[in-house]
Amino acid sequence: MLTLLSAFLCAESRVVMLSPGEVVSGEFSLVDSVPYYEMRRGRVPVVRPGRMGFLLADGSRLDCGFVIDSVESGTIDERWSPVLGQYDTIRNHCRFYRIALRQPASRRTMTVEFRLYDEGLAFRYIFDNPWNGTTHFRIAEERTEFAMSGAHKAFWLPGNFDSNEYYYTTSRLSDIDATAVDGSGIGTHRVLDPDMVQTPLMMKTRGGLYVSLFEAALDDYSAMHLLLDRQRLSFRVVLSPSPVPGVRAFMQTPCRTPWRTLMVSDRAEDILASSMILNLNDPCRLTDTRWIKPIKYVGVWWEMHIPGGSAWSYADVPSVKIGQTDWTALKPHGRHGATTANVLRYIDFAADNGLDAVLVEGWNVGWEEWSGNWKENVFDFVTPYPDFDIDSVTSYARSRGVELIMHHETSGSATNYERRMTEAFDLMERYGYKSLKTGYVGWPIPRGETHDGQWMVNHYNRVVREAAERHIMVNAHEPVRPTGLSRTYPNLLACEAARGNEFNAWSKGNPPEHETILPFTRLLGGGMDYTPGIFEIKMSHYQEGNPCQVHTTLAKQLALYVTMYSPIQMAADLPENYLRRMDAFQFIRDVECDWTDTRILEAEPGDYITVARRGKRSGDWFIGAITDERGRKARIDLSFLDPGCFYVATVYADAPDADWKDNPMAYEIRQYIVDRRTKFRQRLAPGGGCAISLRRATLDDLSRIKDKL
Amino acid sequence: MLTLLSAFLCAESRVVMLSPGEVVSGEFSLVDSVPYYEMRRGRVPVVRPGRMGFLLADGSRLDCGFVIDSVESGTIDERWSPVLGQYDTIRNHCRFYRIALRQPASRRTMTVEFRLYDEGLAFRYIFDNPWNGTTHFRIAEERTEFAMSGAHKAFWLPGNFDSNEYYYTTSRLSDIDATAVDGSGIGTHRVLDPDMVQTPLMMKTRGGLYVSLFEAALDDYSAMHLLLDRQRLSFRVVLSPSPVPGVRAFMQTPCRTPWRTLMVSDRAEDILASSMILNLNDPCRLTDTRWIKPIKYVGVWWEMHIPGGSAWSYADVPSVKIGQTDWTALKPHGRHGATTANVLRYIDFAADNGLDAVLVEGWNVGWEEWSGNWKENVFDFVTPYPDFDIDSVTSYARSRGVELIMHHETSGSATNYERRMTEAFDLMERYGYKSLKTGYVGWPIPRGETHDGQWMVNHYNRVVREAAERHIMVNAHEPVRPTGLSRTYPNLLACEAARGNEFNAWSKGNPPEHETILPFTRLLGGGMDYTPGIFEIKMSHYQEGNPCQVHTTLAKQLALYVTMYSPIQMAADLPENYLRRMDAFQFIRDVECDWTDTRILEAEPGDYITVARRGKRSGDWFIGAITDERGRKARIDLSFLDPGCFYVATVYADAPDADWKDNPMAYEIRQYIVDRRTKFRQRLAPGGGCAISLRRATLDDLSRIKDKL
Repeated sequence: MLTLLSAFLCAESRVVMLSPGEVVSGEFSLVDSVPYYEMRRGRVPVVRPGRMGFLLADGSRLDCGFVIDSVESGTIDERWSPVLGQYDTIRNHCRFYRIALRQPASRRTMTVEFRLYDEGLAFRYIFDNPWNGTTHFRIAEERTEFAMSGAHKAFWLPGNFDSNEYYYTTSRLSDIDATAVDGSGIGTHRVLDPDMVQTPLMMKTRGGLYVSLFEAALDDYSAMHLLLDRQRLSFRVVLSPSPVPGVRAFMQTPCRTPWRTLMVSDRAEDILASSMILNLNDPCRLTDTRWIKPIKYVGVWWEMHIPGGSAWSYADVPSVKIGQTDWTALKPHGRHGATTANVLRYIDFAADNGLDAVLVEGWNVGWEEWSGNWKENVFDFVTPYPDFDIDSVTSYARSRGVELIMHHETSGSATNYERRMTEAFDLMERYGYKSLKTGYVGWPIPRGETHDGQWMVNHYNRVVREAAERHIMVNAHEPVRPTGLSRTYPNLLACEAARGNEFNAWSKGNPPEHETILPFTRLLGGGMDYTPGIFEIKMSHYQEGNPCQVHTTLAKQLALYVTMYSPIQMAADLPENYLRRMDAFQFIRDVECDWTDTRILEAEPGDYITVARRGKRSGDWFIGAITDERGRKARIDLSFLDPGCFYVATVYADAPDADWKDNPMAYEIRQYIVDRRTKFRQRLAPGGGCAISLRRATLDDLSRIKDKL
Repeated sequence: MLTLLSAFLCAESRVVMLSPGEVVSGEFSLVDSVPYYEMRRGRVPVVRPGRMGFLLADGSRLDCGFVIDSVESGTIDERWSPVLGQYDTIRNHCRFYRIALRQPASRRTMTVEFRLYDEGLAFRYIFDNPWNGTTHFRIAEERTEFAMSGAHKAFWLPGNFDSNEYYYTTSRLSDIDATAVDGSGIGTHRVLDPDMVQTPLMMKTRGGLYVSLFEAALDDYSAMHLLLDRQRLSFRVVLSPSPVPGVRAFMQTPCRTPWRTLMVSDRAEDILASSMILNLNDPCRLTDTRWIKPIKYVGVWWEMHIPGGSAWSYADVPSVKIGQTDWTALKPHGRHGATTANVLRYIDFAADNGLDAVLVEGWNVGWEEWSGNWKENVFDFVTPYPDFDIDSVTSYARSRGVELIMHHETSGSATNYERRMTEAFDLMERYGYKSLKTGYVGWPIPRGETHDGQWMVNHYNRVVREAAERHIMVNAHEPVRPTGLSRTYPNLLACEAARGNEFNAWSKGNPPEHETILPFTRLLGGGMDYTPGIFEIKMSHYQEGNPCQVHTTLAKQLALYVTMYSPIQMAADLPENYLRRMDAFQFIRDVECDWTDTRILEAEPGDYITVARRGKRSGDWFIGAITDERGRKARIDLSFLDPGCFYVATVYADAPDADWKDNPMAYEIRQYIVDRRTKFRQRLAPGGGCAISLRRATLDDLSRIKDKL
């Protein structure tokens, strides 16, 4: 359905917009030729009138002097199935409004496209026409404002174009102070502005509305940060800069910006359940996706993070140079993790426990001084260390039915990676690697670029596209925050792009609330390789007196496999730690990471989340419930279960005396027979959680299991 | 011979240095622990004491606090044969002094290596030891000074890290004003500092010494510019910047800087005859060089420069995108130069006239808006325009025994080129292209880098190395100035890296003195693809009233093939212009561009140059004599001819009434019998020149030719 609205509206310079269910409304207006928009939920203002448009690097303005040429509107109502995801089918249902603007003085045109969902509003800028005689223009500043309706509670990260690995601070908007954040452990920490924060930004109004401010479909543009005007409680967009002074994005028509998105609901659960970010991305561009599969894996990784653990590097030498250093002549320091023998151990563990794959970090030469030096030619991505026999490792893995995950740490040197990527992918093909973890620790090269800038955004997306052509699945660490690109390129399984579990091993770590915020922020854009599953919680296990620890109970580590969506999930701890607790490890064996259905049972950002998901492979359900530093009782209602069926619920719960700080590893496992009428409250310890698997009961189960919930 | 000098010198913190013939001397000293050097020729000071060392980006200093740990000295006396060059054998004869310095406070070490030739002095900084616990350091500033001994006459270009396409200004050092230079026609023109000039810098002292200040073996470092301290008449090094504020070079030990070179003589001819810059470069690194050959070529090129000429582009469209635009669907504008039919015409001309190759610019898609837009994905280097049938063109060229020269204009987007280079080289291999002209018009991408900065220097060198592996010869336009790298990688045939002949077609052009300065400056670092041979001198030929013209006579255009060394030489004019003057074109047919011997008969920078060279193929001699805007009589002494032999001298001279401005195309051709006793003076018109070929006379010649010189 497509309607050309009447000239009446145009003359009024005002366009009123409504979502399909008329829950969300918006208004676009020209006030003295300046474009503004606002947004309401019902009658409640969500965003007060805020400016739109751009300042260009040539000094001209694209934020005023407009008339409306035409307005198109219509409805989108379609269903699509993600290759991997949280639902087997996703409905994309919204009304769109395309408002064609013209600057009579400059003869320039710009279209603003709005989409209104019942759970939010999104808009983007479109430049489809040749541009005032030239097709190239440079954006000095995007003037888009987000004028919030009050001093909402916000869960924010400090603005930094080169890292999103911060813990969240919860404060009123008026109390934001990015300088107060502790950036220790972040190599590219830099406080840019006390008033600048990152997206996705989760907020809660005093009136109880949940509001998420984010972007979707970021490609060939710089990522958006937000600068607060504390008086007006209004954010304006700050695009990540380029190395060219005064230029934040290089544009060539036809082109469009990413979507600026505002999600809103009076139920926190609706934010988590929404697929709005994915819906705003383009449909899948890959014709064949049969090679894209969920992955559960272990790897040579956590052992590099624990105190006194092993090393990525092979030798203690002051200088190594790719193509010059003779690695076989180096004296090994003896702490190298990615040795053949050690990797075979992980392969055996994976094979013995039904895991799909093994990640090996530190397999390739260059780690001796890889980070923090602005070094460009850090890695070649093809030369194994002398003690990693790639031939025997890959053939052993194949014999045991386990995949290997390739690892390409770039240390941020994207130019070096781009030069060597074809050869690196060739090696993967030769040895049968089907998935790839990339890494971008450190300041980017091209020097002067930022992790979140247009050039690097294009780089990450280029890697995903070239990997797709080679049938390689990608799990990117330290890239820009994902914005739903996995709809278009489902081989982008997941990203890190946030503070992962490893910070718990060697820094002040992730506070217990951390995992209750991430699904409301970072995960809106796509799966996160958070690397859960740490069973040996306290680092004093490895080094007496070491104060570091994972800030959860063991049971909460299990729950994360459900609450933290990712189609690639690691069992991150050491095999020996799992072997001592195989009863608890059974949940990791059973849990899936690709789903036909997802139910957000309850959620409050910063406090708790309880989620149930149905596995695509088995049809079994899995539940994760987590809480922050406060113990509580999760409400679990199993009415989503198939009618007329009994299920065995295996409950992996915190022991009664469990506590994230004082007794994190105390858990208990019970089995119950349940059906869709079952409702119960499950105790979660402070910093605790609970994982539940639900499989169809057999007659034998019914006779064996007597406990009731 | 290697000597460890006595502790006596070290204690004195003074090292006296001498060239093999004791013509040039130098002195290194520590004055209050600060390193200084000076240089003399005989007893005449050439460089007064000047500082050495570095300021580092971490705030530490490497320009003071030194002691001398040891001094090594010795003699180098070796001969080597360039693959292509001006001599069949080159002698590298110098004394070296390696002064190992140490900063006791920091425990850092740095070696300064001097080489003293009878025609100059060079030094570089070496960091061979691990560096104070870390191997990576960043240079904020190189403090090297060149304290000149007076207000010499200088031939200078204004400092600009992104272009060396300026005309030369001649002034006293004290009168340098870079802001006075007209940069019109240079897309990346930018005046950075009134006191900053480029290297190579040619000077002449009041006492009649010729002094050249330059660098050699630039690799993995930023190119050097010079900032004048007008009071002290002293230059200090300004390295081309990186995009990282405060960092001009990123270093990892073991490493070394380029050589800082000072050539000096009381005869201008010695500067031109010297191979010092080549000698300071590493020996050839290629094992097989049989595929490297000199090239004489025509091409679809000058027709894009003349008024009303053809175009690189194919269509008039506002926006094209590589990988998206359907080129076959575009409506051609009809001015495209690189059409199949037009290229066949050039192939025929080359084949009919004994030329080796044809260059085709504009063969590949992307030229519609290729420059000046900061566009990254400008070209793909593999897709021909619809009207260029690469299959039939290459097979026709092969059938006529003519090579095709590939053209890769990057518009400065080095990242895009690096991504596509392998595929581009694959296409060259598939179609049998053996040589490559690259181009870097525009601001570089990575954005924020400069043409002369370390990253781009590494890029140009990387292209040369990767081309060498594919047996591809390279002719780079708009790169950093070459510094003798063609010794190490002789597949680097030539560069442009200076103001070429094309500026004459559409700008104020190159003043008549231009070509008398280039050999004293730019050409010291390697051959230049100046693209001489323009016969139709005045652009009014193409467009009535057009004031542009080449600022030489036709005869001088011929002489440039000898005075302007390059193993790749273009006959740059249109075939039809040559076909009307085949008598003059005969010189271009005959002249070679690879030599066994070179004699600088007379030279004065800015005034005149007369050179004789012996062709490697035929053994024939060729002479070029050129003058500036003043007419003069060149002194030509043929005593270099083989004893006992008569030669036919074909003299291509300015007609008596020729004049670069009023009558540039008037020439006369005479033949004479000469031998090694022949001496004569040859009249050169204002802005004129003379070209002479000398081949062994036959009996028939002796009876036929009666004129005597």
